[in-house]
Amino acid sequence: MPTIGIADTTFARYNMGRAAIDEIQKNVSVQIKRVTVPGIKDLPVAAKKLIEEEGCDIVMALGMPGAQQKDKMCAHEASQGLIMAQLMTNTHIIEVFVHEDEGKDEKELAFLMDRRTREHALNVIKLLFKPEKLVREAGTGQRQGFEDAGPLRM
Amino acid sequence: MPTIGIADTTFARYNMGRAAIDEIQKNVSVQIKRVTVPGIKDLPVAAKKLIEEEGCDIVMALGMPGAQQKDKMCAHEASQGLIMAQLMTNTHIIEVFVHEDEGKDEKELAFLMDRRTREHALNVIKLLFKPEKLVREAGTGQRQGFEDAGPLRM
Amino acid sequence: MPTIGIADTTFARYNMGRAAIDEIQKNVSVQIKRVTVPGIKDLPVAAKKLIEEEGCDIVMALGMPGAQQKDKMCAHEASQGLIMAQLMTNTHIIEVFVHEDEGKDEKELAFLMDRRTREHALNVIKLLFKPEKLVREAGTGQRQGFEDAGPLRM
Amino acid sequence: MPTIGIADTTFARYNMGRAAIDEIQKNVSVQIKRVTVPGIKDLPVAAKKLIEEEGCDIVMALGMPGAQQKDKMCAHEASQGLIMAQLMTNTHIIEVFVHEDEGKDEKELAFLMDRRTREHALNVIKLLFKPEKLVREAGTGQRQGFEDAGPLRM
Amino acid sequence: MPTIGIADTTFARYNMGRAAIDEIQKNVSVQIKRVTVPGIKDLPVAAKKLIEEEGCDIVMALGMPGAQQKDKMCAHEASQGLIMAQLMTNTHIIEVFVHEDEGKDEKELAFLMDRRTREHALNVIKLLFKPEKLVREAGTGQRQGFEDAGPLRM
Repeated sequence: MPTIGIADTTFARYNMGRAAIDEIQKNVSVQIKRVTVPGIKDLPVAAKKLIEEEGCDIVMALGMPGAQQKDKMCAHEASQGLIMAQLMTNTHIIEVFVHEDEGKDEKELAFLMDRRTREHALNVIKLLFKPEKLVREAGTGQRQGFEDAGPLRM
Repeated sequence: MPTIGIADTTFARYNMGRAAIDEIQKNVSVQIKRVTVPGIKDLPVAAKKLIEEEGCDIVMALGMPGAQQKDKMCAHEASQGLIMAQLMTNTHIIEVFVHEDEGKDEKELAFLMDRRTREHALNVIKLLFKPEKLVREAGTGQRQGFEDAGPLRM
Repeated sequence: MPTIGIADTTFARYNMGRAAIDEIQKNVSVQIKRVTVPGIKDLPVAAKKLIEEEGCDIVMALGMPGAQQKDKMCAHEASQGLIMAQLMTNTHIIEVFVHEDEGKDEKELAFLMDRRTREHALNVIKLLFKPEKLVREAGTGQRQGFEDAGPLRM
Repeated sequence: MPTIGIADTTFARYNMGRAAIDEIQKNVSVQIKRVTVPGIKDLPVAAKKLIEEEGCDIVMALGMPGAQQKDKMCAHEASQGLIMAQLMTNTHIIEVFVHEDEGKDEKELAFLMDRRTREHALNVIKLLFKPEKLVREAGTGQRQGFEDAGPLRM
Repeated sequence: MPTIGIADTTFARYNMGRAAIDEIQKNVSVQIKRVTVPGIKDLPVAAKKLIEEEGCDIVMALGMPGAQQKDKMCAHEASQGLIMAQLMTNTHIIEVFVHEDEGKDEKELAFLMDRRTREHALNVIKLLFKPEKLVREAGTGQRQGFEDAGPLRM
């Protein structure tokens, strides 16, 4: 049975890890390993440890960057680290970041954090069990959390 | 027979992977391995896995960064990761990114995504089979998707 | 007995290392290794050496980036290095940076540097001894130094 | 006999590789290995392959970043990659980039591309054969392509 | 006897390497290895080679980034490379950069380049021989070249 790692943060204002686990368990039988770290810059090494020390086959890295300019920089650094962690392990880490200023109010922000997490949980399942499904969706303008953009009209 | 890897995304609004494969198969006999991932930040590890786990001799990484500022940052992170993946494998990964705001409308954007993908597919073939052709084109202002700039007039 | 590394700087205008050690020793019995370097860009290698040469199980990297634009760039470079050091060692390095312009005056800045350092010292203790406590705090909007943002109201 | 690697691009609008080779051959007897790649982001792996697979003792990475903002970002990514390639090989790669907007017209741009390439070719020769000459030029405000700035007047 | 590496540039307009060596030799008996490279982007690999091929125990990387926006980017890339070089060698490289626009005129700039270099030479000596002195200076707002900021007044 494959193992999915879940890494989230105490900084985020919505329990993204719980949403991810709920969505995964609704859909497939897998082993799940979960860790929570303080902030998004702690996610890269947490994800790498889930892969190398806990045997995870894929990881979801869940976070909510703040709305200030310096938070955007943190998100950039975390993303660079998550890409590097993937290259060092040859393992996918699906980054699910919802910026605090993406929602027009707290309710929409929570909705977006829940929905984007769940839609990416489904991507994780496809990467793990049905990668050919993703090939069939190539170039179709999929979005997570918002409406899909769809393929270009020509 | 050499193997060309193709990695594209479900985020893109045009099937760049199909265009690449079509162009390659029109021109040469090679083995092709294709994967599709959710977004451009998933491309670096996908390309590295194609090289190290699927034996690809070269990879095309195809994506369409969105038009917002944060999408530009994603493209930057993906590009850094693709360069790092190349350095870790001593293997070329040809990045073909078309920004969503490069076309004046959906039709032009689709045209550009198709044409840039196909022109870079030809570069991949040259790198693999006829690198001396590229030396003959050195400094001639080649562009992919748009008109060539041409050499400087002196 | 686990070992916690503390790396701080002579550039900072508050003795963050002393505050961290004080908070840790109030709460747990651990071995502590402390180094001080000139500036925040010297922290990544200092932290890595604490892990690899001094046997630290986790490190706190404490610094006060200056208020100018070029100081922000230094902070960015230091953060990237700290993330890389973590990935190279599979060990957490908790970055505690307080920007010189975060406080409205010197008194508030000192207060913030002391408080954020101490609150992150408690995170370090949780990561080391009680990681399940962090999971219980997932998505609760924890902040260090300022008031917690709290979970989203829906 | 040492080997100098030359990597340039088809994107550039002046044959920088030819200028480099001409200048080197006027001055020293060395073996030269040349490759041409599509764009500047392909230079890091090309340079690393010249070092590790073709036995080059030093490499010149020659390119002309475009004038748009996104081209500046490509140049940044290429530069980061070239520095990383050097660190991975303990070998100098001399980057010679001339931005398309550095010349006031095409003629000046071509002049600059030729001259900067040739002046850096001389630096490569010094690094390889006479590093003590560079020590004698330390702090003298050398520039490649433009007039030297010279040492500060006190 | 420990070995200190000195890497500086021909681009700089003041002989920073000579100032560093003079200050070091006034204070301690060490072996010194000096190299000069064209620009600051050549410093990371030069410093790494000093450590790995010349046996240096610590390195000073001395440079003067130019005043234009693109020079700032070069400084950023060089700094990232210097941090990476440190992480790859577990050895400190003290970066001493003086931006060309930091002085109000050439005289002040030269003064600043000399003074910052010398003050960091003293940091290098402390790191090598008396690291406990740096711990005693933790949080005291040390600056190199300008007046110290001093500890915060509470």
